[in-house]
Amino acid sequence: MSVITIERKVLEKNDEVARQNRTLLADNGVFALNMVSSPGAGKTSILERTLEHLRGSLRVAVIEGDVQTDLDARRVAKYNVPAVQIVTRGGCHLEANLVRDALGNLDLKSVDLLIIENVGNLVCPSNYDLGEAMKVVVASTTEGDDKPLKYPAMFRNASVLILNKIDLLPYIPCTLHVLKENALKINPSLTVFETSCTTGQGIDAWCVWLTENARRKPAS
Amino acid sequence: MSVITIERKVLEKNDEVARQNRTLLADNGVFALNMVSSPGAGKTSILERTLEHLRGSLRVAVIEGDVQTDLDARRVAKYNVPAVQIVTRGGCHLEANLVRDALGNLDLKSVDLLIIENVGNLVCPSNYDLGEAMKVVVASTTEGDDKPLKYPAMFRNASVLILNKIDLLPYIPCTLHVLKENALKINPSLTVFETSCTTGQGIDAWCVWLTENARRKPAS
Repeated sequence: MSVITIERKVLEKNDEVARQNRTLLADNGVFALNMVSSPGAGKTSILERTLEHLRGSLRVAVIEGDVQTDLDARRVAKYNVPAVQIVTRGGCHLEANLVRDALGNLDLKSVDLLIIENVGNLVCPSNYDLGEAMKVVVASTTEGDDKPLKYPAMFRNASVLILNKIDLLPYIPCTLHVLKENALKINPSLTVFETSCTTGQGIDAWCVWLTENARRKPAS
Repeated sequence: MSVITIERKVLEKNDEVARQNRTLLADNGVFALNMVSSPGAGKTSILERTLEHLRGSLRVAVIEGDVQTDLDARRVAKYNVPAVQIVTRGGCHLEANLVRDALGNLDLKSVDLLIIENVGNLVCPSNYDLGEAMKVVVASTTEGDDKPLKYPAMFRNASVLILNKIDLLPYIPCTLHVLKENALKINPSLTVFETSCTTGQGIDAWCVWLTENARRKPAS
């Protein structure tokens, strides 16, 4: 009996549930994103800025994944959007069945855009399809420009890259174009945004992209 | 057959190998640390500053754990210390058997201090004993002051906390005393250091502590 076999079985089961989630989301015209990053890269801050920006134009819902606490869901709740908190109690990533249960708590007919904020972890969530339209990886400049090379799977499996905390570049040993080049070496088809949640820079462009994609209803 | 059972078996086997590593290290008078953090918190930078500082006073060896690339081992090699690179090829944490194999490549009789740099991941490495004397968790200020509450296991299982990147505090929404209080809420017995690898602040105190502990030979 090998651990690898078990892991594969777990992944196969996960992928089957993810397919069901994807169909459900498409049937309801929901554009769903799976947001992944290291802890503290700024997923929740980007989400807050996004909710503020899209208020009144898109109907957004949020699923918050955390190892422990509902701190993030409480931050999001201030923006008066439907939000479901998943606490994994030590689990290092979200799985499709947890998202399926969370979807059961949302009125999907009233949602244009669903943002799933995964557990802060640059390794494990890369293997788990949740049924999203695409993965968005957030890399903060303070993590250093070598991270795409050191954690390639996450950048390979993502469609969008948000380079966050660009306001801190003057104070840190990170070169933005090197960070971007390293990411594009791993995955040349990444759509890249550069943002700062402190100054608000880049949030407009990201929200324009979000709106265009959310209005283009996905086919089931 | 449940996944939880498999996981427990994996952990039991890991713990048995970890015990053997611990005995081997103690028999050779090696003080071993398992350094853990999120990606980009500054483990390798602290290591570089430490190697520079301890040069000529302590005999240090390094085991580098990475998901991919030998970038970190190459950074460390510049300091002329014995270094072994473990590439996990997607694996999200080091395990005791990988460290056992790495130990076989080191002349332990000639080592006072062994620093094992784990994969950048604030979740998974917390469960895996490698045979170290203690875990050192690095939390960078740029990750935000809420991280100990959101990723408690790592802070609970560590003995030492290094709060890194304190030079960036004027530019970011992180309050140092809140970060420290949150960590001590999870684990009141943490020994805490505050460092900046850019200014060198706090590296002295950390190296004094290291030297004292490395000279106090562990009993097997």
